[in-house]
Amino acid sequence: MTAAQLPEAIRCKQSYLCVGLDTDPGKLPSYLGKGPDALLAFNKAIMEATAAYAVSYKINVAFYEALGSEGWRILEETRKAAPRDTYIIADAKRGDIGNTAGRYAEAFFGTLGFDALTVNPYMGLDTLQPYLNHPTGDIFILACTSNPGYIDFEDQVMANGRRLYEEVVVRCQELAPADRVHFVAGATRPEQLGNVRHLAPSSVLLVPGVGSQGGDLLESSKAGFRAAAPLLINASRSILYAGSGQDFAEKAAAEAERLASEMRVILHSEGLM
Amino acid sequence: MTAAQLPEAIRCKQSYLCVGLDTDPGKLPSYLGKGPDALLAFNKAIMEATAAYAVSYKINVAFYEALGSEGWRILEETRKAAPRDTYIIADAKRGDIGNTAGRYAEAFFGTLGFDALTVNPYMGLDTLQPYLNHPTGDIFILACTSNPGYIDFEDQVMANGRRLYEEVVVRCQELAPADRVHFVAGATRPEQLGNVRHLAPSSVLLVPGVGSQGGDLLESSKAGFRAAAPLLINASRSILYAGSGQDFAEKAAAEAERLASEMRVILHSEGLM
Repeated sequence: MTAAQLPEAIRCKQSYLCVGLDTDPGKLPSYLGKGPDALLAFNKAIMEATAAYAVSYKINVAFYEALGSEGWRILEETRKAAPRDTYIIADAKRGDIGNTAGRYAEAFFGTLGFDALTVNPYMGLDTLQPYLNHPTGDIFILACTSNPGYIDFEDQVMANGRRLYEEVVVRCQELAPADRVHFVAGATRPEQLGNVRHLAPSSVLLVPGVGSQGGDLLESSKAGFRAAAPLLINASRSILYAGSGQDFAEKAAAEAERLASEMRVILHSEGLM
Repeated sequence: MTAAQLPEAIRCKQSYLCVGLDTDPGKLPSYLGKGPDALLAFNKAIMEATAAYAVSYKINVAFYEALGSEGWRILEETRKAAPRDTYIIADAKRGDIGNTAGRYAEAFFGTLGFDALTVNPYMGLDTLQPYLNHPTGDIFILACTSNPGYIDFEDQVMANGRRLYEEVVVRCQELAPADRVHFVAGATRPEQLGNVRHLAPSSVLLVPGVGSQGGDLLESSKAGFRAAAPLLINASRSILYAGSGQDFAEKAAAEAERLASEMRVILHSEGLM
């Protein structure tokens, strides 16, 4: 699936929920057992239970890399098991020189078959373009993130009057093809999210920070959701760990349904779609 | 090994060469065969042949990730096969929020046993500190890199008059413990490398860009090498692919020896150690 297909998918499901599979092996329901295969079983159950309410899944690569080559296998298997007609993002925040970026594109878009990858802009445009030279795959460029350290560099004012994250969004408009260029903007800062939307009117914005980090769904949606350039609101822990017993998947589904319902109401009441 | 032990290691070997294992499966000598195990055999032969001339090896993680879980296994095996008393860096340029950064620290310093990891500062100090909360492991923070896109963001002037890469180096002095905080500064820009050295007088600087990217060994060394805060000069392709036949390891050793000889001359003629 591509980002260009997201508006239609969102219209069908009346949801712009992205479920983040930041799966912590230490937090699995005990009856699943331990080890990599328990983790895979958990991911599969979560995806199956939430597929009606989510248009996207975001797999946090670090959680799998921490387990070594076995974890990498679980990442592959999780990707393969993702529900059809959902948009699957590898959240890996990669950023490296040209030939290395080409390798990452091959790894995530080719070998692993992800629809999108999060990338870090610090090293410049020539480290982002190689992803777009791969035949398929969208990129989500970090603009303003949801963590407190956002103020250290991203939010610093440049000599030209722009904040660094604004400079990133403006300069990244030079990348091509433009319809594969999207951004990450945290829900914890709706004003900055609105700035990103203003500077990138056609991009999908991937929005972490709703839920445990305190971001507001309504405020974020008003600031950034456009019918042809939607948001993907990510929720991870609140869904994954909604329950801790044998009914964990039902509890996860209920939480995903609750979020999707809120989104449906917002789409209608705010006339966003 | 730790960064604090590098000055002594450099004194012993009279070399500050770091061999970059950016191993491309498509460039292996044909007699080794193909596939992951050929790649591992190549890496082992390169490390064995160059161990007398290198104080450090830098493993470019992207090249292994591109091969999927099998590649991750080769990364593990390569790390295990690295020569004793060398300093082993995972070049992965990671940068992510706190709990994810903690996972990466566990993956690279714990599971994989690397001595150091390259990291990206864009998201702020709270995304870097978790690596230092792990009991072991040094970080090399991207400051000014050797790629042309360096001018897009890293070299931009901030409202406070500093370049972004200078701001990164200055602010990262707040991280603790300071003796585990080091920087990446490209050989293609000796002046900027000198600026980083000035702002981070006690840090090791990891210097890519000598060789195929055109950086100058003597200029870089004069700008940044200090007896107690040395440089690690990285060379990858010029060593790995010095030969393409059955004598590839001997050719690699000869190229590493040539670079180490230049370094020995510079250390003496410039009175750097």
